[in-house]
Amino acid sequence: MVERIIDAARASFARNGWAGTTLRGVAREVDVDPALLHYYFSSKEELLDASTRPPDAWLDSIATTNSVPLRERGEAIVRNVIWGWNQPEISEVLGSILMTAAHEPRTREKLRAFVTASLLPAIADRIEGEERLLRASLVATQVIGLVMMRWVWEIEPIASLPEDELVALVAPNIQRYLTGRLS
Amino acid sequence: MVERIIDAARASFARNGWAGTTLRGVAREVDVDPALLHYYFSSKEELLDASTRPPDAWLDSIATTNSVPLRERGEAIVRNVIWGWNQPEISEVLGSILMTAAHEPRTREKLRAFVTASLLPAIADRIEGEERLLRASLVATQVIGLVMMRWVWEIEPIASLPEDELVALVAPNIQRYLTGRLS
Repeated sequence: MVERIIDAARASFARNGWAGTTLRGVAREVDVDPALLHYYFSSKEELLDASTRPPDAWLDSIATTNSVPLRERGEAIVRNVIWGWNQPEISEVLGSILMTAAHEPRTREKLRAFVTASLLPAIADRIEGEERLLRASLVATQVIGLVMMRWVWEIEPIASLPEDELVALVAPNIQRYLTGRLS
Repeated sequence: MVERIIDAARASFARNGWAGTTLRGVAREVDVDPALLHYYFSSKEELLDASTRPPDAWLDSIATTNSVPLRERGEAIVRNVIWGWNQPEISEVLGSILMTAAHEPRTREKLRAFVTASLLPAIADRIEGEERLLRASLVATQVIGLVMMRWVWEIEPIASLPEDELVALVAPNIQRYLTGRLS
């Protein structure tokens, strides 16, 4: 029940944004009494929080990726991105966050806070030197553009590239950001 | 007048998507008679086309960038992206296209068609070998992720990086996609 509410809310935020989503509309969508929905989520903020929370399975996979030795981390990161977007329950949530954040200032703020406070430090955790956060954010530029081109916009020839080929093409660039000379 | 209509329509598509934008609403926004707006744009499709057309100045700058010798093209591409996002009349339109495309299937389809039919072939135009389109689409993954991180989401430390530093950091990766050994 709560899962169905969250799924419907996530779809509505992605499609209609913050302004176009109402507790009442989501309740109608999943055919529950608005009072019952209110029992679970007392405000639209709470509903947005719940529906844009990064999946635990994805956070776990990032932690695992970060324990791979640094010299193989570039390949591990690309393989983890591919793995994540092959899991429907992960790709659906992440895709909705990207879509909502693109046109919804509150979600963009949440995305920015999450990336800045959690994701970049997590990636930077096992990188050495003062440039840790810079290196992590450069990795993020490559990963996000790859995600947009291959999975969100599905632009060829990137969209249909075999997975091993994709790894061979992109991993060296990520590896440079992780361990290469930057200046 | 037509410019004001297009600007208002662009903002509405970016914020409210296809379904949430009406000719009547745009007419109200710019305070013109709906009949007059209809005189310029007979359908919502026409209005979407007009408001998501890539700026000529940007297309020109891509053509200029593609005439830079291939061995310096990586740096030229990063400098051109920075230049474009520093022009308000370019960054506003491109930003709206990205935001609209993120949650609006029609715009995503237009974006896909434009990238596939015009942008990638333009970038690939002066690249040698069979892998031209693949190389161009890899360049696009890096450029798009950089744009999202630095200008759309404004995530640090990428957002505030001095321009020359950004060029030094990212250009070598783009250069590898252009001229490096891919497999």
